[in-house]
Amino acid sequence: MVVKVYGPAYASSKRLMLCLAEKGIKFEPVPIDLFKGEHKTPKFLELQVFSFISIIKLFADMETFSCNYSLESRAIIRYNAEKYKSQGTDLLGKTIEERGVVEQWVEIEAHNYHPPILDMTMHILFASKLGFTQDEKLINENEEKLGKALDIYEKRLSESKYLGGEFFSLADLS
Amino acid sequence: MVVKVYGPAYASSKRLMLCLAEKGIKFEPVPIDLFKGEHKTPKFLELQVFSFISIIKLFADMETFSCNYSLESRAIIRYNAEKYKSQGTDLLGKTIEERGVVEQWVEIEAHNYHPPILDMTMHILFASKLGFTQDEKLINENEEKLGKALDIYEKRLSESKYLGGEFFSLADLS
Repeated sequence: MVVKVYGPAYASSKRLMLCLAEKGIKFEPVPIDLFKGEHKTPKFLELQVFSFISIIKLFADMETFSCNYSLESRAIIRYNAEKYKSQGTDLLGKTIEERGVVEQWVEIEAHNYHPPILDMTMHILFASKLGFTQDEKLINENEEKLGKALDIYEKRLSESKYLGGEFFSLADLS
Repeated sequence: MVVKVYGPAYASSKRLMLCLAEKGIKFEPVPIDLFKGEHKTPKFLELQVFSFISIIKLFADMETFSCNYSLESRAIIRYNAEKYKSQGTDLLGKTIEERGVVEQWVEIEAHNYHPPILDMTMHILFASKLGFTQDEKLINENEEKLGKALDIYEKRLSESKYLGGEFFSLADLS
């Protein structure tokens, strides 16, 4: 089995690569240069639903997959964690209740941690490279949002060893 | 078993109530008035991680739940869909692959449909009520984003009966 990971070596692609590494699944990274707009070429658009950051694709020759089977990054890591549950690190917890808590913290990452980090990264690091104006107000607003998210993490991690509980999970990985 | 759903009769609470209805799980809605700030009282903050829209709580007397067990809305519907898989409508698909596709479309809703709808709702309907200035630029930007998301849905639904495939799922519900 070969899994190809289309995407840059950072951001959402990295989430998937970490997951595959934890599960001991061999994969082949296929670098995509976002700055050259490689993720917007017809070839890659065909592999994915959205054309921007969610460039990652779990691809091809997996038994039951059709060639253009494509999923968003968090959907892919959930899929892998479930499909290969007994292989490598168990990333979902042992029970449905444990998985529920893991899912909660994956959601918190997705909706409270990721958006401010993404906006800040775009405006602080990539504005000039991508040709748009750095928005100071937006940066400050997101810094505040990020602070709140980090406070929540800090509180949680003072109560339990990992975000999802006493075990490493998709929530920590993500 | 009694499940209490804390929240208003719209937004994320409704997502959960629809899920519980599909699964045939009895629940008791506990109305919360966001405009009166009831979701920010210590009593409710205790039940939840974040204090704003993700007000919904799956609560109490379920066998394995502790009293303050709380999850974000999409995490709750996933939990219920899995825990009560054989009861009511199957909302996850029959195989891990089918669930993968369902998860993809739940993610697309969460990251591409929900954010512009939320911003537009806040600025078009609730700005004056909540005491902030309606931002025309932001409304227009989000209208464009929403249009793109709807185009994707239109394409998808021309190819398959439902978002997740040939069966109704969490993706459609959400």
